[in-house]
Amino acid sequence: MTPISVVSYGLGPIGVSIARHALDIGHRIVGAVDIDPEKVGRDLGTLIGRDPLGVTVAADPAEALARGPEVVLHSTQSHIPQVLSQILDCLEAGACVVSTCEEMAFPWYRHPAAAHRIDRVAKARHVAAVGVGVNPGFVMDLLPVVLTAACREVRSIHVTRVVDAGTRRLPLQRKVGAGMTRAEFAQGVAEGRLGHVGLQESVALIADALGWPLDGITEDIEPVADGDQVRGLHQVARGAQGGRPVITLDLTMAVGAPNPRDSIIIEGDPPLHVTAAGGVHGDVATCAIAVNAIPRVLEAPPGLTAVHRLPPLRYGDARSAR
Amino acid sequence: MTPISVVSYGLGPIGVSIARHALDIGHRIVGAVDIDPEKVGRDLGTLIGRDPLGVTVAADPAEALARGPEVVLHSTQSHIPQVLSQILDCLEAGACVVSTCEEMAFPWYRHPAAAHRIDRVAKARHVAAVGVGVNPGFVMDLLPVVLTAACREVRSIHVTRVVDAGTRRLPLQRKVGAGMTRAEFAQGVAEGRLGHVGLQESVALIADALGWPLDGITEDIEPVADGDQVRGLHQVARGAQGGRPVITLDLTMAVGAPNPRDSIIIEGDPPLHVTAAGGVHGDVATCAIAVNAIPRVLEAPPGLTAVHRLPPLRYGDARSAR
Repeated sequence: MTPISVVSYGLGPIGVSIARHALDIGHRIVGAVDIDPEKVGRDLGTLIGRDPLGVTVAADPAEALARGPEVVLHSTQSHIPQVLSQILDCLEAGACVVSTCEEMAFPWYRHPAAAHRIDRVAKARHVAAVGVGVNPGFVMDLLPVVLTAACREVRSIHVTRVVDAGTRRLPLQRKVGAGMTRAEFAQGVAEGRLGHVGLQESVALIADALGWPLDGITEDIEPVADGDQVRGLHQVARGAQGGRPVITLDLTMAVGAPNPRDSIIIEGDPPLHVTAAGGVHGDVATCAIAVNAIPRVLEAPPGLTAVHRLPPLRYGDARSAR
Repeated sequence: MTPISVVSYGLGPIGVSIARHALDIGHRIVGAVDIDPEKVGRDLGTLIGRDPLGVTVAADPAEALARGPEVVLHSTQSHIPQVLSQILDCLEAGACVVSTCEEMAFPWYRHPAAAHRIDRVAKARHVAAVGVGVNPGFVMDLLPVVLTAACREVRSIHVTRVVDAGTRRLPLQRKVGAGMTRAEFAQGVAEGRLGHVGLQESVALIADALGWPLDGITEDIEPVADGDQVRGLHQVARGAQGGRPVITLDLTMAVGAPNPRDSIIIEGDPPLHVTAAGGVHGDVATCAIAVNAIPRVLEAPPGLTAVHRLPPLRYGDARSAR
């Protein structure tokens, strides 16, 4: 393969696993960015459990971007207002961006002005930006979209994802409210600290792909609890047409959730019922998807794009010549 | 939607259902081609069970192509040597081609010279050509490729498709040998009259998408029979690397085949096990995929392409503005 020069922007659990995987398959990490004082100044290789790389983690993105990466693997926060200037910096520096920021999976939905700005800057610098991940970005949106290719009629799409948060890292367990009381959970939801980010983006992505104008998108979050002891959350987003829900995304992430799976039901002609037994493992898959997106973003037309507008991301591609 | 002007080339069962569906969703059929004397000279609308269209089925493709279609929906035969001149005619006339010819799903595998010629003519006329269908083209190749996006390692891919041919049209039952004796089946296979066309193409498509060089592709066909009474076939194609099968496509099409399904097992990190319960209905899905390919082929770069090199085909797209 042709190694691609990348910058790792954000070294939380996901960012570290992305950096590790990119390195392991032969990409060249030329810079790294994180604001955590425990990480700044350290050698990236040592930090991620590999051989020293001679790449020092910088707090200032300009330092890393000055190395002229072809692609920035961006993994910091979930909301576009938090990451907008980070992404613009990367694009201004002439690098393509693959971001795991959840709202970047379909940024036109919640932040059309920011999306327009990202698109404009990317086009001006002849680079592309895309938001990726397992959810949003794959199991609850792209996969159902891909399946509809086989349908001459689609009346509704219903996706159920059940994740046993007990098998996942602690920050995720906290994000879904495990260990809280019901009152703490309700407060966390009200303050926007709890809940999966990106479910509405997934609805918007599906509607965009199918050309479905929606009345609107609604979302409900409730705790999964034993008595007052919260184990996780149950979150449902719905897109309606003429008052009828045509897209329903039903997500449960809870410690001990039974029968973990991803299940896609398309009501149409033909009807389809597709299930990933056990579900697609979130963190591993997001790491894989980010690295597998590298060749796709490099060959994408300049601008802000989305996974359903690109040829399919796939494994192994990065190993072959561009 | 913007209606697209299309020509229906080939009016067998699949061609008719494609024409009907294209018409039903609002495309404009400007010409039709078939060599069957029972069909030539008839009004296409009447022939396919719709209102008269004022389009007469022609035996001579030049007559239909002179109407300047944007896209030809081509559905005649399974092998490239049979369809090469048909496809070249369409491209020379300046039309994009969506073909259900099985070998067109990955023409570089068996007919690289023909593929090169199709590509050259398409590029010269600034149009694109693509082979599509449910199998090859979707369940046993594209879908596993799409799923690998979530994997940071893929060691092997195993797809099982089981079709109860009893629920399908008679020509398909004949194609899989239902009703024959074992001796007739063996002779049919030896003469190339029996068997599913395209399984090796599916292996080649997956290998291409993943950048896997293969030692080679092998294929076995055996009857599914009760005593001497054949009910269908069991066909397996394998792609190997270093002597180890890394891609196995296992297809059973037989009257009364139990547990019809499409099942994809990816051995990797994470492992994936995805199943379409009941299986994706072949004829309906192929018809849908051909029509859903129209917007994708129109926006594709000129030349011969393949489904894994295009943004995902999906339902409904043809209804939205281009």
